[in-house]
Amino acid sequence: MSEPRLRAKELDAADGLAAQRAEFLLDEGGGGSGGEAVYLDGNSLGALPAAVPGRVEDVVRRQWGELRIRSWTEEGWWTAPERIGDRIAPLVGAAAGQIVVGDSTSVNVFKAVVGAVRLARSADTAAGPVGSAGPVRDEIVVDATTFPTDGYIAESAARMTGCTLRPVPPSGVPDALGDRTAAVLLNHVDYRTGRLHDLPALTAAVHAAGAYVVWDLCHSAGALPVGLDEHGVDLAVGCTYKYLNGGPGSPAYLYVRAELQDRFDSPLPGWNSHAEPFGMRPEYAPAPGALRGRVGTPDILSMLALEAALDVWDGGVTIEAVRAKSLALTDFFLECVEAYVPEGRVECLTPRPHGERGSQIALRCPDAGDVMKRLIERGVVGDFRHPDVLRFGFTPLYVGFADVERAARVLADVLAEPGT
Amino acid sequence: MSEPRLRAKELDAADGLAAQRAEFLLDEGGGGSGGEAVYLDGNSLGALPAAVPGRVEDVVRRQWGELRIRSWTEEGWWTAPERIGDRIAPLVGAAAGQIVVGDSTSVNVFKAVVGAVRLARSADTAAGPVGSAGPVRDEIVVDATTFPTDGYIAESAARMTGCTLRPVPPSGVPDALGDRTAAVLLNHVDYRTGRLHDLPALTAAVHAAGAYVVWDLCHSAGALPVGLDEHGVDLAVGCTYKYLNGGPGSPAYLYVRAELQDRFDSPLPGWNSHAEPFGMRPEYAPAPGALRGRVGTPDILSMLALEAALDVWDGGVTIEAVRAKSLALTDFFLECVEAYVPEGRVECLTPRPHGERGSQIALRCPDAGDVMKRLIERGVVGDFRHPDVLRFGFTPLYVGFADVERAARVLADVLAEPGT
Repeated sequence: MSEPRLRAKELDAADGLAAQRAEFLLDEGGGGSGGEAVYLDGNSLGALPAAVPGRVEDVVRRQWGELRIRSWTEEGWWTAPERIGDRIAPLVGAAAGQIVVGDSTSVNVFKAVVGAVRLARSADTAAGPVGSAGPVRDEIVVDATTFPTDGYIAESAARMTGCTLRPVPPSGVPDALGDRTAAVLLNHVDYRTGRLHDLPALTAAVHAAGAYVVWDLCHSAGALPVGLDEHGVDLAVGCTYKYLNGGPGSPAYLYVRAELQDRFDSPLPGWNSHAEPFGMRPEYAPAPGALRGRVGTPDILSMLALEAALDVWDGGVTIEAVRAKSLALTDFFLECVEAYVPEGRVECLTPRPHGERGSQIALRCPDAGDVMKRLIERGVVGDFRHPDVLRFGFTPLYVGFADVERAARVLADVLAEPGT
Repeated sequence: MSEPRLRAKELDAADGLAAQRAEFLLDEGGGGSGGEAVYLDGNSLGALPAAVPGRVEDVVRRQWGELRIRSWTEEGWWTAPERIGDRIAPLVGAAAGQIVVGDSTSVNVFKAVVGAVRLARSADTAAGPVGSAGPVRDEIVVDATTFPTDGYIAESAARMTGCTLRPVPPSGVPDALGDRTAAVLLNHVDYRTGRLHDLPALTAAVHAAGAYVVWDLCHSAGALPVGLDEHGVDLAVGCTYKYLNGGPGSPAYLYVRAELQDRFDSPLPGWNSHAEPFGMRPEYAPAPGALRGRVGTPDILSMLALEAALDVWDGGVTIEAVRAKSLALTDFFLECVEAYVPEGRVECLTPRPHGERGSQIALRCPDAGDVMKRLIERGVVGDFRHPDVLRFGFTPLYVGFADVERAARVLADVLAEPGT
């Protein structure tokens, strides 16, 4: 047995989270031909938690099929967005009452960025004696390397609030801030490179400029500690289908810091965020608290599938333990790649320092599209990001060290083949 | 047997749609105690189609659990919004390629109303020689009796586009239109009274004023012919969980008339509406066609449940036959209420003329909240709308005439009880 294979055995034997794998349905059929897959694409779509199919069947057959509209009250459908928000809260370092689940990430980015601009302007208006305010806050700063939807939506938010959009690389954000900055939209972990940005320092810099920050947690929530409350984050959004395993297109969430909720002024004030939704009043009056982030009727099937998926976090799994294993997995993957793949064949885009690394490894190689196709054919499932990136996500709840070793070994085999 | 009971028997025997009831799971457990329920709340949440549970189980266990990300292509997840939009299209009189499914009704109202204002302004800009344009179009007219969310969202759309919101009763809309009108948001059927508004005439009036109309089809789609293409409607939205039986909070849809798609400028330009979504480009370039109405990652579980639910329309069920039965059901319900309930005890808010009636009957009675509670206890499920409305929806695909007679009879019993 090769040295990395022996190491994998030892690491798996010492893995305190190894038992969590049983909470997922991973072994029947697999993601590739030839037996069980190594699934390293949980940063795109988390694997199926074992609790989900039964729960969904109950929601469909009994709650919808038999109780029908009574389930809105009797089965807690109506309050699901805030109830499930409170289940996500501890995973991102938030006290209860600050997160609602619903809509897509894109739609929540819109709520959050417009909301942040309005917060900045209302703070300036309230700040001092008349005439003492500085220039109007009319700039939205956005991570220039962001997942595209955040940039498109920020552009729309800028257009609709009379702001200019300023795309800036995250490292340049502190220098770009000023008294015209209204809102800053940043990614906690870069979707392409896996780089982890410095949330505490960047949040403090935005606040020092008198602006409001929106963090996109899609690639960090469920993989590493976020500390929303601790670091005074204003607003945050995230999807639930990556490291939270909510299922394809499961609803996203919106965090609004408790102290800001009274002033949060949503651009999407639907009846679900009304103080008295069944009053059916023609005038809008926003609900107190996180509910203000709701819009229309919540998508119950997907939302309750997510609720069941969150059961995997019960029973003492801590985000700190998940983070420790995540770093061990990515360290070990890099070690195996170095051992197996000829030097220079791939280039690692993900930073080596732990403090700058999310839970994925991005390898650049010129023929990445073709290489990923062959990897998937051999049961090693990652994904390809245009134009030349192999992306491997490591979900500590169900990925083990033997999986990692096998992935690196198969990668080396594929890279050694003629035609790649 | 009473005269209405005999009539019900005859009507059921002659009902060409009676066999469709078998397409739904209605008999196990029921919605109330004491046997099978009479479910007259399909205008709030449609009953469970028999094809749904098996399909959802396949989506969860095999597509998500086994194929995982491969399902985005292999199982057609990615194209579901437009594919399922094309399944809804014939039910609302639209040719293919004009409807996408996704997001809530509220979010789609926002896209449509902002989109309509931008269409109106771009048309004025394009219309004639420089300087020939009239005053800027800065008014949004909205049905003053609308379901609240439409009004709240229209208010937000007005605020964000520099418009004034003008709430007007639908009958007053033609007189309220002028050369400042940008967009008009109307309900095809009023959620409270069940009144059917004159879509062809109101659409023509809006067009004559040079404005753009958005129709909310929540309470008409699947219950009566809409004729979006025939009547030249510009934009339309609707939910799918009422007469389309998509399940609790199933995704809504957006119709953008083919000729307007190139100019449709969405306020929510997410990566799913990009011309090249996997190009991951920082600049937004809208996709051609109806896809331009998409935003974020589609909610697959709910969306594919809806797709299965739409199977009930296959095999020759026409919307014209559904409409004919709907009118027969509501006529018969009024007939039975007149026969059983003492005059003056309830007041019908739904118009009598067929041309002004949707697929529901709204009865006003001062103690409506308490009455509906008792009705539900006896297995007759409608709903209560604040402050004094009993609302009964008639879904022709699974409601029969004996159901209608029983509902009226139980209503009369409840109304005769002391304390009501």
